[in-house]
Amino acid sequence: MVITSETNDHIKRIKALMEKGKSRRKEGAFIVEGVKMTREISSDKNAVIYVSESFRENSDEFSEAFVISDKIFKKITDTVTPQGVLAIVPQKKYTLDEILDCEKGCLVILDRLQDPGNLGTIIRTGEAAGIKGIIMSKDSVDIYNPKVVRSTMGAIFRVPFYVCDNLEDAISDIKSSGFKCMAAHLDGQVISKMDWPEKTAFMIGNESSGLSDKVSCLADERIKIPMDGQVESLNASVAASILMYSHKLNTMV
Amino acid sequence: MVITSETNDHIKRIKALMEKGKSRRKEGAFIVEGVKMTREISSDKNAVIYVSESFRENSDEFSEAFVISDKIFKKITDTVTPQGVLAIVPQKKYTLDEILDCEKGCLVILDRLQDPGNLGTIIRTGEAAGIKGIIMSKDSVDIYNPKVVRSTMGAIFRVPFYVCDNLEDAISDIKSSGFKCMAAHLDGQVISKMDWPEKTAFMIGNESSGLSDKVSCLADERIKIPMDGQVESLNASVAASILMYSHKLNTMV
Repeated sequence: MVITSETNDHIKRIKALMEKGKSRRKEGAFIVEGVKMTREISSDKNAVIYVSESFRENSDEFSEAFVISDKIFKKITDTVTPQGVLAIVPQKKYTLDEILDCEKGCLVILDRLQDPGNLGTIIRTGEAAGIKGIIMSKDSVDIYNPKVVRSTMGAIFRVPFYVCDNLEDAISDIKSSGFKCMAAHLDGQVISKMDWPEKTAFMIGNESSGLSDKVSCLADERIKIPMDGQVESLNASVAASILMYSHKLNTMV
Repeated sequence: MVITSETNDHIKRIKALMEKGKSRRKEGAFIVEGVKMTREISSDKNAVIYVSESFRENSDEFSEAFVISDKIFKKITDTVTPQGVLAIVPQKKYTLDEILDCEKGCLVILDRLQDPGNLGTIIRTGEAAGIKGIIMSKDSVDIYNPKVVRSTMGAIFRVPFYVCDNLEDAISDIKSSGFKCMAAHLDGQVISKMDWPEKTAFMIGNESSGLSDKVSCLADERIKIPMDGQVESLNASVAASILMYSHKLNTMV
């Protein structure tokens, strides 16, 4: 049985989960796309997998998957060259306490980050840098936005994260558990060969406006990545990556 | 006089320069978009500036500019929210010798980089990290592609670059002038708190296939950014940024 209609309930559900953060929150589910990421969740009993007709003609993988006509499959995905595989997957929930329960390591705190590609890249680089988790304000881009999910390259399954109702309260908890909060700020102290504390949380703000005053006031220190030339700021995901790796490389034995 | 027709010679020229690397090379010109970047070149006698009708209604800036109807302006730019300002600007040419003529510093060598956003980000971060220049293979994405230009945020005017007919020959010149070539490679030696040579060139490969064997064989060393978790690789612009800044931070006094 091949699904060929846009009004099919499966298709309506996939589209809602693709397009609407509200639907994702309501269902507690999200969409992953592509062979690699779908393989990672294929053992999850609660995942529902879909493949395109031409994928099925060429491969027996994901034998339990529903089959969708190529035309409809192309319509529901916004990737330029869809691989013909996607899945509905239950969202993961972490508590702040779980994330903070560690001897040492690095956290990233995001204040109103808006660009899906930036968030995805921070999660991907964050896994590679071995960070303990990402704490983000509620008004940041939805972590389950398909563009975020795609650009994590799978890291979304592995990097713990916590979306706060109140970022200031969360920062106070983070500090109480021994993390030093370093705010990336244009008025901050220029970092050089910095010896970061073993427990460091880097605070990164919105792409245009940076950290809000309210939030950056809570930091233990304001820091700035040195910039030559006439560059006014670095891309948020680049800044986060440089900081996470400067922590990783400086604390490696 | 407001330009209202798509068949107007100005519009045809702008469109060709937006869309075709061939036209850009033939004319030795390219397009910059937005108020900020146009301001930077507004004193260039050879630049031709255009504004949209509604920009002109709200501002006297760029008084010499040609005015284009909003409808046509929107059609020729691929930015989501065009600011109503663009310019045709002569390309800059640097020689490899000019770039290599320095006492110390950092270079980036790009082998077949394809993503415009990655190249733009490397140029932007490169300016901030104070690199001496970017050397790239001919089959990399066109540096004057409007998406590259836009994501440099102006750094394209300030970071010297050289596009090589033959990357291997260029690498040999780079080495002869005292730069140590470090190839970012999955089989490389994991970097930690590395003391980079004062003259270091980082070699970064294509987004999917990395550096070609031919090119990475020419490196003085193969290096790898350490990666935890299941991450197979970092985004090319993130990897370049981490390396450029690890050089900058380690050689800062």
